[in-house]
Amino acid sequence: MRERALRAIAECRQIAAMTEEPGRITRRFLTPPVHAVHAHLRRRMEALDMTTRVDAAGNLRGLWRPPNGNGKQFILGSHIDTVPDAGAFDGVLGVMLALECVELAQEAKLPLAIEAIAFSEEEGVRFGVPFIGSRAVAGRFDRALLALRDAEGVMLEDAIRAFGLDPAGVEQAALDDDAIGFLEMHIEQGPVLEAEGLSVAAVTVVVGQTRLTAEFQGWANHVGTTPMRLRRDALAGAAEWIGTVEAAARATEGLAATVGKIDATPNAANVIAGRVRVSLDVRHAHDAARTAAVQALLAQGEAIALRRGLAFQCARQMDQPAVPMDERLTRFLTDAMEATGFAARSMPSGAGHDAMVMAARLPAAVLFLRSPGGVSHHPEETVREMDVEAALQVAQSFLVRLAAEGR
Amino acid sequence: MRERALRAIAECRQIAAMTEEPGRITRRFLTPPVHAVHAHLRRRMEALDMTTRVDAAGNLRGLWRPPNGNGKQFILGSHIDTVPDAGAFDGVLGVMLALECVELAQEAKLPLAIEAIAFSEEEGVRFGVPFIGSRAVAGRFDRALLALRDAEGVMLEDAIRAFGLDPAGVEQAALDDDAIGFLEMHIEQGPVLEAEGLSVAAVTVVVGQTRLTAEFQGWANHVGTTPMRLRRDALAGAAEWIGTVEAAARATEGLAATVGKIDATPNAANVIAGRVRVSLDVRHAHDAARTAAVQALLAQGEAIALRRGLAFQCARQMDQPAVPMDERLTRFLTDAMEATGFAARSMPSGAGHDAMVMAARLPAAVLFLRSPGGVSHHPEETVREMDVEAALQVAQSFLVRLAAEGR
Repeated sequence: MRERALRAIAECRQIAAMTEEPGRITRRFLTPPVHAVHAHLRRRMEALDMTTRVDAAGNLRGLWRPPNGNGKQFILGSHIDTVPDAGAFDGVLGVMLALECVELAQEAKLPLAIEAIAFSEEEGVRFGVPFIGSRAVAGRFDRALLALRDAEGVMLEDAIRAFGLDPAGVEQAALDDDAIGFLEMHIEQGPVLEAEGLSVAAVTVVVGQTRLTAEFQGWANHVGTTPMRLRRDALAGAAEWIGTVEAAARATEGLAATVGKIDATPNAANVIAGRVRVSLDVRHAHDAARTAAVQALLAQGEAIALRRGLAFQCARQMDQPAVPMDERLTRFLTDAMEATGFAARSMPSGAGHDAMVMAARLPAAVLFLRSPGGVSHHPEETVREMDVEAALQVAQSFLVRLAAEGR
Repeated sequence: MRERALRAIAECRQIAAMTEEPGRITRRFLTPPVHAVHAHLRRRMEALDMTTRVDAAGNLRGLWRPPNGNGKQFILGSHIDTVPDAGAFDGVLGVMLALECVELAQEAKLPLAIEAIAFSEEEGVRFGVPFIGSRAVAGRFDRALLALRDAEGVMLEDAIRAFGLDPAGVEQAALDDDAIGFLEMHIEQGPVLEAEGLSVAAVTVVVGQTRLTAEFQGWANHVGTTPMRLRRDALAGAAEWIGTVEAAARATEGLAATVGKIDATPNAANVIAGRVRVSLDVRHAHDAARTAAVQALLAQGEAIALRRGLAFQCARQMDQPAVPMDERLTRFLTDAMEATGFAARSMPSGAGHDAMVMAARLPAAVLFLRSPGGVSHHPEETVREMDVEAALQVAQSFLVRLAAEGR
């Protein structure tokens, strides 16, 4: 299994060289290096006797049907697009591990058809909308998306054609009734497993997310001539609120609440800030807890503003419910961990993944691998061999369980 | 006196039309509209039988010598340069009031020579260094300043020549031993007099000022995947510090401490801020109080950073001691207020003025006029007729006192 882990890692590094920008890993949806990745993966798939195709949403799909199968298919995969200046493992590793799993299933003669999918688009970089590949596979692709334009003004519909595909066929990308479940293996992109000294974890739920922009409006005036008692300082108000956001999140189990963006106006050392806009991102596995937290934080923002003579307003950008992973598949994962000698750890995912979209269509699960340093979306993103090996051991045991229990 | 006040206001509005940018008041040091202002003021001065000149630093100077004088001169004036998109009264009003005072002195046959100065540069906009005009008059002009360059790369030395002056003569701009004192009338540029319902106040001291940039360095990571307990959030740290800055200033009489500028990196809603830079501006009339406050705030920054696993560092940009105004002249002002029926109010100035530079050379005083709405450096900057009239009444009484007591 160590050899498989090393091969998967080596292949990720090889695919990292297929990039839009020499010296940096940047591979956006339907850009030329995606052809190179497809060609590379196709060779691997064909060597595994898989039948391959690229669907109209640009997803590369390889299907292995065992001689002893019942026609039902299990789906494995992740995405091959990246953020700009990315690491080598976010997404791609899940595709390489899917192919290793196909071979493991073949060697074990599991009566399980497997479709391995290299999703075309997950990061949302090129068209500002994420999960375009998995939306099509899950039968959740809204044709209105075809009118999206990238930064160069190219419409998605035309980008699909330019890639050699026919946008009219996007509905045919959807899974049929033979699909019984989905497993994605993905790096954690966070520091939790590293902090606990663990290799892998099953994802219980992709947390819900609220994103909004809050604005404190005060009175811009000269810092030297305006005594403290006569100020209406928007930055002091925003800073107080940032403190309450952090305190609330620390006090509530499982809550993540973050102000990551702040813009002060006029943003000058000698002028009291007249207006400050901050972002608020709130995530929790339970929608009720998230909604209550957002409501409380907005009330605190209002109260801070009122006490300080500021105006407070907020514009909500996103309210996305939590998406639970399939309990049975997730239990297969934790059972597999125990069977292979690993701690049966499960955790929520604070970030979205293709599995979140797939879960709208069929039972879905995610296996996280430790992210050394918690680093992702960065050239220093990496994985440990032992963790990749662990993921393969767990996935193998998972597939055996799945084949034994059937649908 | 109401007529004089109305004329001074009307003249400020007329001079406001002499601008680099039609529709906005922008009149930087040694730019073409300054010639127009000089021509206008020269006509006024000559009508008052004053002898006029423009010194090598671009200051327009008009001298009135009474037949019954003793050769000693009192200096009145303010500046005629502006910030970009300025109001009509900051600086210019003090020049117009100086000319009204000359006429008042003439009518009262005061045995007092008066030099009225329209300082060429106070705001520091064009060359990044303020008080260039008053530095020359105070004999505090460092010749190294001649090598300063503006945003277009023009050297100050060449700008002086282009204006028709000889930079070699800058030393001759300095006051001689006949100068016995300086009074500047200037809008408050703050909300204190308005809050107290007062027209004018004497300035006791121009407060000292420390300006620095502080940086909190943490760990930029994904807001969804990094639990609160594993974060090193530079923005949360900076926000906590902004709170302590405000609290310290509120708790210390006369202290102004402000964070007006904040820059977070990467400044994205879905990334914990890895680095935040903030400005700190601290002002107090007593240098020891200011120094102690800065030291305490930096220690609190260090403590906050240490507790949060952040790095903290600071770069000091300015440490400027407080400049007391002359006690005798300031007492003349408050005595004049009482004598003319106004409250004898005095207050520190939180902003720098030409009088601060002049105080290094001779006894100096400042009379503040109420700023409606506390607004300055803005097109909506204005003055009330009653306050301009009050300033003239106080100034007249001040000059009578000065002439009576002599030097």
